[in-house]
Amino acid sequence: MINYPNGGGGPSSFSKDSSTANAFSFSKRGMSLEQEINDSNDHYLHKGIAVIHKKPTPIQIVNVDYPKRSRAVIKEAYFRQASTTDYNGVYNGYYVDFEAKETRNKTSFPLKNFHQHQITHFENCLSQKGICFVIIKFTSLNRYFSYPASRLIKHWRNQEDSRKSIKLNEIIDYGIEFYPGFRPTLPYLETINNLIQRIEYDK
Amino acid sequence: MINYPNGGGGPSSFSKDSSTANAFSFSKRGMSLEQEINDSNDHYLHKGIAVIHKKPTPIQIVNVDYPKRSRAVIKEAYFRQASTTDYNGVYNGYYVDFEAKETRNKTSFPLKNFHQHQITHFENCLSQKGICFVIIKFTSLNRYFSYPASRLIKHWRNQEDSRKSIKLNEIIDYGIEFYPGFRPTLPYLETINNLIQRIEYDK
Repeated sequence: MINYPNGGGGPSSFSKDSSTANAFSFSKRGMSLEQEINDSNDHYLHKGIAVIHKKPTPIQIVNVDYPKRSRAVIKEAYFRQASTTDYNGVYNGYYVDFEAKETRNKTSFPLKNFHQHQITHFENCLSQKGICFVIIKFTSLNRYFSYPASRLIKHWRNQEDSRKSIKLNEIIDYGIEFYPGFRPTLPYLETINNLIQRIEYDK
Repeated sequence: MINYPNGGGGPSSFSKDSSTANAFSFSKRGMSLEQEINDSNDHYLHKGIAVIHKKPTPIQIVNVDYPKRSRAVIKEAYFRQASTTDYNGVYNGYYVDFEAKETRNKTSFPLKNFHQHQITHFENCLSQKGICFVIIKFTSLNRYFSYPASRLIKHWRNQEDSRKSIKLNEIIDYGIEFYPGFRPTLPYLETINNLIQRIEYDK
Protein backbone atom coordinates (compact mmCIF):
# COMPACT_ATOMS: atom_id res chain seq x y z
CA MET A 1 0.00 0.00 0.00
CA ILE A 2 1.24 3.47 -0.82
CA ASN A 3 1.02 5.77 2.16
CA TYR A 4 1.50 9.51 1.95
CA PRO A 5 3.76 10.32 4.87
CA ASN A 6 2.75 13.97 5.04
CA GLY A 7 -0.71 12.75 5.89
CA GLY A 8 -4.08 13.95 4.78
CA GLY A 9 -3.01 15.19 1.38
CA GLY A 10 -2.67 12.05 -0.66
CA PRO A 11 -4.50 11.79 -3.94
CA SER A 12 -7.21 9.19 -4.12
CA SER A 13 -4.95 6.82 -5.97
CA PHE A 14 -6.71 4.63 -8.55
CA SER A 15 -4.69 1.59 -7.68
CA LYS A 16 -1.85 0.99 -5.30
CA ASP A 17 0.66 1.22 -8.11
CA SER A 18 -1.07 3.60 -10.48
CA SER A 19 1.46 5.64 -12.38
CA THR A 20 -1.08 8.44 -12.64
CA ALA A 21 -0.05 9.54 -9.16
CA ASN A 22 2.76 11.33 -11.01
CA ALA A 23 0.24 13.87 -12.19
CA PHE A 24 0.05 15.28 -8.68
CA SER A 25 2.74 17.55 -7.37
CA PHE A 26 4.17 17.03 -3.93
CA SER A 27 6.98 18.54 -2.02
CA LYS A 28 9.88 16.11 -2.10
CA ARG A 29 9.36 15.25 1.52
CA GLY A 30 5.81 14.21 0.74
CA MET A 31 6.61 12.01 -2.24
CA SER A 32 5.22 8.53 -2.33
CA LEU A 33 7.73 5.71 -2.54
CA GLU A 34 6.77 5.23 -6.19
CA GLN A 35 7.50 8.87 -6.97
CA GLU A 36 10.80 8.70 -5.12
CA ILE A 37 11.84 5.70 -7.21
CA ASN A 38 10.65 7.18 -10.52
CA ASP A 39 12.54 10.36 -9.69
CA SER A 40 15.68 8.34 -8.95
CA ASN A 41 15.29 6.33 -12.16
CA ASP A 42 15.10 9.58 -14.15
CA HIS A 43 18.35 10.65 -12.54
CA TYR A 44 20.04 7.32 -13.27
CA LEU A 45 18.83 7.46 -16.89
CA HIS A 46 20.03 11.00 -17.53
CA LYS A 47 23.41 10.32 -15.91
CA GLY A 48 23.88 7.15 -17.99
CA ILE A 49 24.06 4.99 -14.85
CA ALA A 50 21.17 2.58 -15.52
CA VAL A 51 18.01 2.21 -17.60
CA ILE A 52 15.20 1.25 -15.23
CA HIS A 53 11.51 2.02 -15.79
CA LYS A 54 8.28 1.37 -13.97
CA LYS A 55 5.95 -0.73 -16.06
CA PRO A 56 2.60 0.82 -16.91
CA THR A 57 -0.42 -0.50 -15.01
CA PRO A 58 -2.05 -3.16 -17.20
CA ILE A 59 -5.47 -2.12 -18.44
CA GLN A 60 -8.15 -4.06 -20.30
CA ILE A 61 -9.65 -1.63 -22.80
CA VAL A 62 -13.29 -2.23 -23.75
CA ASN A 63 -14.49 0.93 -25.45
CA VAL A 64 -12.67 3.81 -27.16
CA ASP A 65 -14.12 6.96 -28.66
CA TYR A 66 -12.39 8.64 -31.61
CA PRO A 67 -13.70 12.21 -31.70
CA LYS A 68 -12.96 14.19 -34.86
CA ARG A 69 -9.99 16.52 -34.57
CA SER A 70 -9.05 15.35 -31.09
CA ARG A 71 -7.30 12.43 -29.50
CA ALA A 72 -8.85 9.05 -28.75
CA VAL A 73 -10.67 8.80 -25.43
CA ILE A 74 -10.91 5.51 -23.57
CA LYS A 75 -14.50 5.37 -22.28
CA GLU A 76 -14.51 1.96 -20.62
CA ALA A 77 -11.59 0.00 -19.27
CA TYR A 78 -10.66 -2.19 -16.30
CA PHE A 79 -7.56 -2.77 -14.21
CA ARG A 80 -5.92 -6.12 -14.88
CA GLN A 81 -3.70 -8.26 -12.69
CA ALA A 82 -0.04 -7.73 -13.52
CA SER A 83 2.02 -10.81 -14.30
CA THR A 84 5.35 -9.27 -13.33
CA THR A 85 6.85 -6.91 -10.75
CA ASP A 86 6.64 -3.15 -11.25
CA TYR A 87 10.23 -2.24 -12.13
CA ASN A 88 12.86 -3.69 -14.41
CA GLY A 89 15.77 -2.63 -16.55
CA VAL A 90 19.48 -2.94 -17.18
CA TYR A 91 22.52 -1.86 -15.18
CA ASN A 92 26.02 -2.55 -16.48
CA GLY A 93 24.97 -5.77 -18.23
CA TYR A 94 22.82 -6.99 -15.34
CA TYR A 95 19.09 -7.54 -15.65
CA VAL A 96 17.55 -5.75 -12.66
CA ASP A 97 14.02 -6.53 -11.41
CA PHE A 98 12.35 -5.27 -8.28
CA GLU A 99 9.17 -4.40 -6.45
CA ALA A 100 8.75 -1.48 -4.03
CA LYS A 101 6.65 -1.73 -0.86
CA GLU A 102 5.90 0.44 2.15
CA THR A 103 4.71 -0.45 5.60
CA ARG A 104 3.75 1.59 8.65
CA ASN A 105 4.76 -1.28 10.90
CA LYS A 106 7.81 -0.60 13.05
CA THR A 107 9.18 -4.05 13.78
CA SER A 108 8.29 -6.27 10.83
CA PHE A 109 7.22 -6.31 7.21
CA PRO A 110 3.91 -8.13 6.53
CA LEU A 111 4.04 -10.68 3.72
CA LYS A 112 0.48 -9.86 2.70
CA ASN A 113 2.03 -6.94 0.79
CA PHE A 114 3.03 -9.50 -1.85
CA HIS A 115 1.06 -11.57 -4.33
CA GLN A 116 1.85 -15.02 -5.62
CA HIS A 117 2.43 -13.75 -9.18
CA GLN A 118 5.23 -11.48 -7.94
CA ILE A 119 6.93 -14.33 -6.11
CA THR A 120 6.62 -16.57 -9.17
CA HIS A 121 8.04 -13.83 -11.37
CA PHE A 122 11.02 -13.43 -9.01
CA GLU A 123 11.62 -17.19 -9.09
CA ASN A 124 11.54 -17.18 -12.89
CA CYS A 125 13.91 -14.21 -13.16
CA LEU A 126 16.34 -15.63 -10.59
CA SER A 127 16.55 -18.85 -12.60
CA GLN A 128 17.59 -16.67 -15.58
CA LYS A 129 20.29 -15.01 -13.42
CA GLY A 130 18.47 -11.73 -12.95
CA ILE A 131 19.23 -9.42 -10.00
CA CYS A 132 15.96 -9.48 -8.06
CA PHE A 133 15.13 -7.60 -4.89
CA VAL A 134 12.54 -5.58 -3.00
CA ILE A 135 12.82 -1.98 -1.92
CA ILE A 136 11.17 -1.83 1.50
CA LYS A 137 10.33 1.45 3.17
CA PHE A 138 9.40 1.56 6.85
CA THR A 139 7.46 4.81 6.68
CA SER A 140 7.13 5.27 10.45
CA LEU A 141 10.89 4.84 10.87
CA ASN A 142 11.81 6.57 7.58
CA ARG A 143 14.22 3.69 6.84
CA TYR A 144 14.83 2.17 3.41
CA PHE A 145 16.27 -1.24 2.53
CA SER A 146 17.11 -3.34 -0.50
CA TYR A 147 16.26 -6.92 0.37
CA PRO A 148 17.13 -9.92 -1.84
CA ALA A 149 14.20 -11.66 -3.53
CA SER A 150 15.78 -15.02 -2.67
CA ARG A 151 15.23 -14.29 1.05
CA LEU A 152 11.68 -13.08 0.41
CA ILE A 153 10.92 -16.34 -1.41
CA LYS A 154 12.22 -18.36 1.56
CA HIS A 155 9.91 -16.51 3.95
CA TRP A 156 6.98 -16.76 1.54
CA ARG A 157 7.36 -20.53 1.39
CA ASN A 158 7.48 -20.70 5.20
CA GLN A 159 4.15 -18.98 5.69
CA GLU A 160 2.67 -22.24 6.94
CA ASP A 161 4.68 -21.90 10.14
CA SER A 162 2.43 -18.98 11.12
CA ARG A 163 5.14 -16.46 10.49
CA LYS A 164 3.27 -13.97 8.35
CA SER A 165 5.87 -11.26 8.32
CA ILE A 166 9.61 -10.64 8.03
CA LYS A 167 11.19 -9.18 11.14
CA LEU A 168 13.01 -5.86 10.84
CA ASN A 169 16.10 -7.51 12.32
CA GLU A 170 16.12 -10.06 9.51
CA ILE A 171 15.86 -7.22 6.98
CA ILE A 172 18.72 -5.39 8.68
CA ASP A 173 20.82 -8.58 8.61
CA TYR A 174 20.12 -9.72 5.03
CA GLY A 175 19.14 -6.45 3.36
CA ILE A 176 21.16 -3.33 2.70
CA GLU A 177 20.05 -0.01 4.14
CA PHE A 178 20.28 3.17 2.09
CA TYR A 179 19.50 6.78 2.89
CA PRO A 180 17.40 9.31 0.98
CA GLY A 181 19.36 12.15 -0.59
CA PHE A 182 18.98 14.93 -3.10
CA ARG A 183 20.08 13.44 -6.43
CA PRO A 184 19.03 10.75 -6.69
CA THR A 185 16.21 11.00 -4.19
CA LEU A 186 16.73 7.32 -3.35
CA PRO A 187 20.26 6.11 -4.14
CA TYR A 188 19.13 2.49 -4.16
CA LEU A 189 21.58 1.45 -6.87
CA GLU A 190 24.38 1.98 -4.34
CA THR A 191 23.23 -1.30 -2.84
CA ILE A 192 23.23 -3.25 -6.08
CA ASN A 193 26.86 -4.28 -6.24
CA ASN A 194 26.51 -5.60 -2.73
CA LEU A 195 23.29 -7.40 -3.75
CA ILE A 196 25.00 -8.90 -6.81
CA GLN A 197 27.75 -10.28 -4.59
CA ARG A 198 25.22 -11.75 -2.17
CA ILE A 199 23.17 -13.26 -4.97
CA GLU A 200 26.25 -14.78 -6.53
CA TYR A 201 27.30 -16.03 -3.10
CA ASP A 202 23.92 -17.73 -2.68
CA LYS A 203 24.41 -19.84 -5.82
CA MET B 1 1.58 -1.29 -38.04
CA ILE B 2 -0.10 -4.57 -37.20
CA ASN B 3 -1.59 -6.21 -40.25
CA TYR B 4 -3.91 -9.16 -40.13
CA PRO B 5 -2.67 -11.44 -42.89
CA ASN B 6 -5.90 -13.42 -43.14
CA GLY B 7 -7.53 -10.20 -44.21
CA GLY B 8 -10.90 -8.83 -43.37
CA GLY B 9 -11.16 -10.35 -39.94
CA GLY B 10 -8.91 -8.18 -37.86
CA PRO B 11 -10.25 -6.52 -34.75
CA SER B 12 -10.39 -2.75 -34.79
CA SER B 13 -7.26 -2.51 -32.72
CA PHE B 14 -7.24 0.45 -30.28
CA SER B 15 -3.61 1.21 -30.88
CA LYS B 16 -0.93 -0.43 -32.92
CA ASP B 17 0.47 -2.16 -29.87
CA SER B 18 -2.63 -2.62 -27.75
CA SER B 19 -2.38 -5.76 -25.71
CA THR B 20 -6.15 -6.06 -25.77
CA ALA B 21 -5.85 -7.71 -29.16
CA ASN B 22 -5.19 -10.86 -27.12
CA ALA B 23 -8.85 -10.99 -26.27
CA PHE B 24 -9.65 -12.01 -29.82
CA SER B 25 -9.13 -15.53 -31.00
CA PHE B 26 -7.45 -16.23 -34.30
CA SER B 27 -6.27 -19.27 -36.08
CA LYS B 28 -2.52 -19.43 -35.69
CA ARG B 29 -2.03 -18.55 -39.33
CA GLY B 30 -3.95 -15.34 -38.81
CA MET B 31 -2.08 -14.19 -35.71
CA SER B 32 -0.68 -10.69 -35.65
CA LEU B 33 3.05 -10.39 -35.08
CA GLU B 34 2.34 -9.23 -31.53
CA GLN B 35 0.28 -12.32 -30.84
CA GLU B 36 2.94 -14.57 -32.34
CA ILE B 37 5.56 -13.04 -30.05
CA ASN B 38 3.36 -13.15 -26.93
CA ASP B 39 2.59 -16.78 -27.69
CA SER B 40 6.30 -17.53 -28.05
CA ASN B 41 7.11 -15.69 -24.82
CA ASP B 42 4.53 -17.82 -22.98
CA HIS B 43 6.26 -20.90 -24.30
CA TYR B 44 9.71 -19.64 -23.29
CA LEU B 45 8.41 -18.76 -19.82
CA HIS B 46 6.76 -22.13 -19.20
CA LYS B 47 9.79 -24.03 -20.46
CA GLY B 48 12.13 -21.99 -18.22
CA ILE B 49 14.05 -20.68 -21.25
CA ALA B 50 13.58 -16.92 -20.77
CA VAL B 51 11.38 -14.38 -18.98
CA ILE B 52 10.26 -11.83 -21.56
CA HIS B 53 7.04 -9.82 -21.40
CA LYS B 54 5.35 -7.20 -23.50
CA LYS B 55 4.96 -3.98 -21.54
CA PRO B 56 1.40 -2.75 -21.07
CA THR B 57 0.32 0.21 -23.18
CA PRO B 58 0.79 3.34 -21.05
CA ILE B 59 -2.50 5.02 -20.18
CA GLN B 60 -3.23 8.32 -18.48
CA ILE B 61 -6.22 7.72 -16.24
CA VAL B 62 -8.48 10.69 -15.61
CA ASN B 63 -11.69 9.33 -14.15
CA VAL B 64 -12.56 6.07 -12.38
CA ASP B 65 -15.90 4.86 -11.14
CA TYR B 66 -16.11 2.57 -8.10
CA PRO B 67 -19.52 0.92 -8.28
CA LYS B 68 -20.68 -0.89 -5.14
CA ARG B 69 -20.16 -4.65 -5.23
CA SER B 70 -18.32 -4.59 -8.56
CA ARG B 71 -14.92 -3.77 -9.87
CA ALA B 72 -13.62 -0.29 -10.64
CA VAL B 73 -14.43 1.03 -14.11
CA ILE B 74 -12.13 3.50 -15.85
CA LYS B 75 -14.49 6.03 -17.46
CA GLU B 76 -11.98 8.43 -18.99
CA ALA B 77 -8.40 7.77 -19.98
CA TYR B 78 -5.95 8.57 -22.77
CA PHE B 79 -3.14 6.78 -24.55
CA ARG B 80 0.29 8.07 -23.60
CA GLN B 81 3.56 8.00 -25.51
CA ALA B 82 5.74 5.11 -24.38
CA SER B 83 9.29 5.93 -23.28
CA THR B 84 10.70 2.48 -24.02
CA THR B 85 10.38 -0.36 -26.50
CA ASP B 86 7.58 -2.90 -26.18
CA TYR B 87 9.43 -6.01 -24.99
CA ASN B 88 12.10 -6.70 -22.42
CA GLY B 89 13.24 -9.39 -20.06
CA VAL B 90 16.05 -11.70 -19.05
CA TYR B 91 17.67 -14.66 -20.79
CA ASN B 92 20.53 -16.53 -19.14
CA GLY B 93 21.83 -13.43 -17.38
CA TYR B 94 21.43 -11.17 -20.39
CA TYR B 95 19.10 -8.18 -20.44
CA VAL B 96 17.05 -8.51 -23.63
CA ASP B 97 15.19 -5.58 -25.19
CA PHE B 98 13.40 -5.44 -28.51
CA GLU B 99 10.72 -3.93 -30.67
CA ALA B 100 8.62 -5.85 -33.23
CA LYS B 101 7.61 -4.34 -36.57
CA GLU B 102 5.86 -5.49 -39.71
CA THR B 103 5.96 -4.17 -43.23
CA ARG B 104 4.14 -5.10 -46.43
CA ASN B 105 7.08 -3.83 -48.48
CA LYS B 106 8.99 -6.52 -50.35
CA THR B 107 12.43 -5.01 -50.80
CA SER B 108 13.04 -2.67 -47.87
CA PHE B 109 11.96 -1.75 -44.36
CA PRO B 110 10.79 1.88 -43.95
CA LEU B 111 12.39 3.73 -41.03
CA LYS B 112 9.17 5.65 -40.39
CA ASN B 113 8.09 2.55 -38.47
CA PHE B 114 10.30 3.80 -35.64
CA HIS B 115 10.07 6.74 -33.28
CA GLN B 116 12.92 8.75 -31.80
CA HIS B 117 12.10 7.57 -28.25
CA GLN B 118 12.64 3.94 -29.30
CA ILE B 119 16.02 4.75 -30.85
CA THR B 120 17.05 6.71 -27.74
CA HIS B 121 15.96 3.83 -25.52
CA PHE B 122 18.04 1.38 -27.59
CA GLU B 123 21.06 3.68 -27.31
CA ASN B 124 20.64 3.88 -23.54
CA CYS B 125 20.25 0.11 -23.15
CA LEU B 126 23.21 -0.65 -25.42
CA SER B 127 25.40 1.60 -23.29
CA GLN B 128 24.36 -0.57 -20.31
CA LYS B 129 25.34 -3.72 -22.26
CA GLY B 130 21.80 -4.84 -23.02
CA ILE B 131 21.05 -7.15 -25.96
CA CYS B 132 18.93 -4.91 -28.22
CA PHE B 133 17.33 -5.82 -31.51
CA VAL B 134 14.28 -5.56 -33.72
CA ILE B 135 12.09 -8.39 -34.92
CA ILE B 136 11.13 -7.49 -38.48
CA LYS B 137 8.41 -9.33 -40.36
CA PHE B 138 8.03 -8.93 -44.09
CA THR B 139 4.38 -9.91 -44.24
CA SER B 140 4.18 -10.17 -48.05
CA LEU B 141 7.20 -12.48 -48.08
CA ASN B 142 6.36 -14.22 -44.78
CA ARG B 143 9.99 -13.79 -43.71
CA TYR B 144 11.16 -12.98 -40.17
CA PHE B 145 14.46 -11.47 -39.02
CA SER B 146 16.24 -10.42 -35.85
CA TYR B 147 18.19 -7.30 -36.67
CA PRO B 148 20.67 -5.65 -34.27
CA ALA B 149 19.62 -2.29 -32.80
CA SER B 150 23.17 -1.01 -33.38
CA ARG B 151 22.62 -1.29 -37.16
CA LEU B 152 19.19 0.31 -36.92
CA ILE B 153 20.71 3.26 -35.05
CA LYS B 154 23.34 3.71 -37.79
CA HIS B 155 20.63 3.87 -40.47
CA TRP B 156 18.48 6.17 -38.36
CA ARG B 157 21.37 8.63 -38.02
CA ASN B 158 21.93 8.52 -41.78
CA GLN B 159 18.41 9.58 -42.66
CA GLU B 160 19.75 12.89 -43.93
CA ASP B 161 21.25 11.13 -46.91
CA SER B 162 17.73 10.54 -48.24
CA ARG B 163 17.85 6.85 -47.41
CA LYS B 164 14.58 6.45 -45.59
CA SER B 165 14.53 2.69 -45.40
CA ILE B 166 16.75 -0.31 -44.78
CA LYS B 167 17.15 -2.60 -47.79
CA LEU B 168 16.12 -6.23 -47.44
CA ASN B 169 19.63 -7.24 -48.55
CA GLU B 170 21.14 -5.31 -45.65
CA ILE B 171 18.74 -7.06 -43.27
CA ILE B 172 19.68 -10.44 -44.75
CA ASP B 173 23.39 -9.60 -44.34
CA TYR B 174 23.33 -8.14 -40.82
CA GLY B 175 20.20 -9.73 -39.36
CA ILE B 176 19.42 -13.37 -38.63
CA GLU B 177 16.48 -15.05 -40.32
CA PHE B 178 14.25 -17.41 -38.36
CA TYR B 179 11.26 -19.51 -39.39
CA PRO B 180 7.81 -19.81 -37.79
CA GLY B 181 7.11 -23.14 -36.15
CA PHE B 182 4.68 -24.80 -33.79
CA ARG B 183 6.17 -24.36 -30.31
CA PRO B 184 7.25 -21.67 -30.06
CA THR B 185 5.30 -19.99 -32.83
CA LEU B 186 8.31 -17.74 -33.47
CA PRO B 187 11.57 -19.27 -32.30
CA TYR B 188 13.28 -15.88 -32.24
CA LEU B 189 15.49 -16.73 -29.27
CA GLU B 190 17.37 -19.15 -31.54
CA THR B 191 18.96 -16.05 -33.01
CA ILE B 192 20.01 -14.52 -29.72
CA ASN B 193 23.32 -16.28 -29.17
CA ASN B 194 24.31 -15.22 -32.64
CA LEU B 195 23.14 -11.65 -31.87
CA ILE B 196 25.12 -11.65 -28.60
CA GLN B 197 28.26 -12.64 -30.50
CA ARG B 198 27.70 -9.92 -33.08
CA ILE B 199 27.02 -7.31 -30.42
CA GLU B 200 30.13 -8.29 -28.50
CA TYR B 201 32.09 -8.24 -31.76
CA ASP B 202 30.89 -4.67 -32.41
CA LYS B 203 32.38 -3.41 -29.16
